[in-house]
Amino acid sequence: MPEQYTVGVDFGTESGRAVVVRLRDGAALGEAVSPYRHAVMERTLPDGTPLGKDWALQHPQDYLDVFREAVPEALALSGVQPDEVVGIGIDFTACTPLPVRADGTPLCFLPEYASQPHAWVKLWKHHAAQPQADRINALAEQRSEGWLPRYGGKISSEWFFAKALQILEEAPEVYAATERFIEAADWVVWQLCGVETRNACTAGYKAIYQDGQYPTPEYFAALNPGFADVVQTRLGHDLAPLGGRAGGLTEQAAAWTGLKPGTAVAVANVDAHVAVPAAGVVEPGRMVAIMGTSTCHILLGETLREVPGMCGVVPDGVVPGLYGYEAGQSGVGDIFAWLVRHAVPPEYHQRAEAEGLSLHQLLEREAAGQRPGEHGLMVLDWIGGNRSVLVDADLSGVILGLTLSTRAPDLYRAMIEATAYGTRLIIETFEQSGVPVNELVISGGLKKNRMLMQIYADVTGRPLSVLDAEQGPALGSAMHAAVAAGAYPDIQAAARCMGKVQRGVYHPNPEHQPVYDQLYREYRELHDYFGRGANEVMHRLRRLRRAE
Amino acid sequence: MPEQYTVGVDFGTESGRAVVVRLRDGAALGEAVSPYRHAVMERTLPDGTPLGKDWALQHPQDYLDVFREAVPEALALSGVQPDEVVGIGIDFTACTPLPVRADGTPLCFLPEYASQPHAWVKLWKHHAAQPQADRINALAEQRSEGWLPRYGGKISSEWFFAKALQILEEAPEVYAATERFIEAADWVVWQLCGVETRNACTAGYKAIYQDGQYPTPEYFAALNPGFADVVQTRLGHDLAPLGGRAGGLTEQAAAWTGLKPGTAVAVANVDAHVAVPAAGVVEPGRMVAIMGTSTCHILLGETLREVPGMCGVVPDGVVPGLYGYEAGQSGVGDIFAWLVRHAVPPEYHQRAEAEGLSLHQLLEREAAGQRPGEHGLMVLDWIGGNRSVLVDADLSGVILGLTLSTRAPDLYRAMIEATAYGTRLIIETFEQSGVPVNELVISGGLKKNRMLMQIYADVTGRPLSVLDAEQGPALGSAMHAAVAAGAYPDIQAAARCMGKVQRGVYHPNPEHQPVYDQLYREYRELHDYFGRGANEVMHRLRRLRRAE
Repeated sequence: MPEQYTVGVDFGTESGRAVVVRLRDGAALGEAVSPYRHAVMERTLPDGTPLGKDWALQHPQDYLDVFREAVPEALALSGVQPDEVVGIGIDFTACTPLPVRADGTPLCFLPEYASQPHAWVKLWKHHAAQPQADRINALAEQRSEGWLPRYGGKISSEWFFAKALQILEEAPEVYAATERFIEAADWVVWQLCGVETRNACTAGYKAIYQDGQYPTPEYFAALNPGFADVVQTRLGHDLAPLGGRAGGLTEQAAAWTGLKPGTAVAVANVDAHVAVPAAGVVEPGRMVAIMGTSTCHILLGETLREVPGMCGVVPDGVVPGLYGYEAGQSGVGDIFAWLVRHAVPPEYHQRAEAEGLSLHQLLEREAAGQRPGEHGLMVLDWIGGNRSVLVDADLSGVILGLTLSTRAPDLYRAMIEATAYGTRLIIETFEQSGVPVNELVISGGLKKNRMLMQIYADVTGRPLSVLDAEQGPALGSAMHAAVAAGAYPDIQAAARCMGKVQRGVYHPNPEHQPVYDQLYREYRELHDYFGRGANEVMHRLRRLRRAE
Repeated sequence: MPEQYTVGVDFGTESGRAVVVRLRDGAALGEAVSPYRHAVMERTLPDGTPLGKDWALQHPQDYLDVFREAVPEALALSGVQPDEVVGIGIDFTACTPLPVRADGTPLCFLPEYASQPHAWVKLWKHHAAQPQADRINALAEQRSEGWLPRYGGKISSEWFFAKALQILEEAPEVYAATERFIEAADWVVWQLCGVETRNACTAGYKAIYQDGQYPTPEYFAALNPGFADVVQTRLGHDLAPLGGRAGGLTEQAAAWTGLKPGTAVAVANVDAHVAVPAAGVVEPGRMVAIMGTSTCHILLGETLREVPGMCGVVPDGVVPGLYGYEAGQSGVGDIFAWLVRHAVPPEYHQRAEAEGLSLHQLLEREAAGQRPGEHGLMVLDWIGGNRSVLVDADLSGVILGLTLSTRAPDLYRAMIEATAYGTRLIIETFEQSGVPVNELVISGGLKKNRMLMQIYADVTGRPLSVLDAEQGPALGSAMHAAVAAGAYPDIQAAARCMGKVQRGVYHPNPEHQPVYDQLYREYRELHDYFGRGANEVMHRLRRLRRAE
């Protein structure tokens, strides 16, 4: 039987990446990256129109250029022939939606809307819809909407309807011209195969699709009368299952990519979620932590539970047939980067440079030999706010235990430990809600920090497995393409052959665990004291900071 | 009437400083410094004998060299003639005692004891007598000794009897050879005039002299039977009043100093306490804060009150006829220095260098424009532990409110504010105990930081006066010499003519005060939560750090 291949395309925040993957074993044979020409637009549109505070837009043409550049380049590097490629799948950042015409044309491509910021793609980290999100939450609480607990009690300003409502209220003419409002993930699939689909993952996690429906017209009308029919007029109802076939590659898209017309195009997916089967995880009990600037935790469960502070639970949202649970920590790599950038004195910079190390590597080396508790510090890892389990962006970081002997490696280690305590608290919250977590599977850039990984094993008391692929999301997209092409009957079968994981790379150190148990209890007590209302000092300081 | 002068000699930690002062107006006419040749001995004796952890010794010859070098040099620089000098006074660090023979010869000058660490001067920051201090406190509590509350409930390991007991227990042969155990302050006066005196200030603040007596022989016997007669055999009872005349300059001391034999020698004083009249403060209600690496607060009162967490209250301990109250903050300049040294990234170092500023100056400038609350931070200033009012060296620092936008100037300002909150809490504790504080008079190196001074005015809600002399302690010593010489009838009269203060240099900003009131309430709540037993996390972290 001849070898078969698929192409996985991972659309990130700054660039798109294509990988050609062998179906037999998941091997990555060729890879290419296309940086987005317009990157993230935070200050102006391409024509110089200024943007407001907290805006973050993208240019849809940059996505199409990934198909025209990265895919053919990866194919050429792999040595694979176009007729050996049976499918293409994509994953995307989310929630990253755009307004388009009924034929899929982005409004921002039309000259009459090119200077209108609301006509462009709103990137996931567009945070200017916070007032809309606040009203979405207040109204949902007031009406006791049944879907609210599925999102840990809070809808993010990053999500779908906050962004849509912002368009309606700030640019009604753009809203009126919007015939479809769609995730970029689904839009690029549409551009590949000419068929509009809505994937179950973004619909569930970002657009409040629960129990077979979006929020009701009554709810939307109460937000804004003009918003009542947003679903009926601009979304539609049918969802496409992950691993499903959205359609076949059009002639035009075949010309862009160098693949054959009619090649299977998989339903879209989200970058974090698609990393789960890429790590071979298609069953309950194994939590995948995608650890980068922030951490996204994804866990499969057999039953529906309402877990406090989770980001969302969606049936079939990650793997068909199971509930996909998502939780998150707002600041992880971000807060280590903050420390390294803003609170490490010159001597460490000089030593790192002299030894040819990054500052992270130097601090890791200097801190790795400490026994747990040696630095005497306790950190609350809320420097970027808290998502799970408190869902409170206005919380802030704490460093406690400072003495005149405290040094940068102490702070570095204490911050890493704090994020591990945060992960443990999320795990325990899942378990207390009836969703077991037996193992951690680590994906994302931080898996390279060995001290961090050992601390996570020691603090959580669980073995750590590691995603064994450089490009987890692209691999996951290629796996879904294999299912869409019929090469595997389902994602479980694809994961068995193509998933890449090293099991049990780190094990808890039995000498460290009791000390970390004790330190975790300290974390927990401070977490509850500052996070659950006993002392609202962080909120009061935040208001003073904003001069409210 | 011809001009008259006195010489004030200030014995610090690293050097001694002599200043020639004009009696008419307190003008400093000549000044010279002698660094101690042996500085602080922390690792070895001069002959190489190693010292233990937390030891800090000095060499008595270094003190005598100040008389032989700095005094004649200052005199020469001043242009004053020896017969115009009517007195000499000294102040010293404390508690800094040494064991001597009955004729005043330090044991360490005798060859048979020169290799014995316990024969040398124990500098104030010798911290190796902590086990003895712990027993002194435990026994005093158990016996409900009436003097314990006069010291805020805790005797420091730095003080007199802890150091004496350490000698008895660790070097009984040295203790046996000790005929007098005496403060270096009183010892140098003895060397000048040939008369052994014990000044009321060190006896009261450091040697637990209260209500006309030291602790009883019964108490000392319960500590260690061999210690029962320590007062009777090695101290004696009579105290000499501040401003008193200890004696006249001996021929030998006249030869050292270049002054006339018979010149009045004042009773010794302590460096912090002598700065009080130097700043013109000889009446109740005006708190003098000597602000350097740590802060010492001294306040005069008309009645005896037991103030929680003070360092001590001593009748006639600062100014005859009044109760002298002392409180302290362990880490002030020290913790700013810690931040600047260990948590400020290279870019600020580079900018400071490029602009020819110290890093402190740069950070002050960058933070000075902030409105109160703008940085969103709250700090507990316990990075060096807490003296007043909690008296707990095992407390540690907290930084709360960190976000990804927090920068070094924010932290710098927040740390300064925290020490101001600490000062306000000390002030309020005095007032709640019935000792009024109407004004702050600032002495010490930190008075040069204008942002800090304004913050102290805003936070405490009190006008700030500033000691208007470069060398406050030496001026104070010269003033006491003037009283000892009979040039002024008492220190009050001397202070009126010679004291140097600029009144009301800083006034509270009425726009800032309400915000700082609010922030102070936050400080207070965290202070009590972490400092008064609600959450003992700092003590548990400290034990883990020590691996206890």
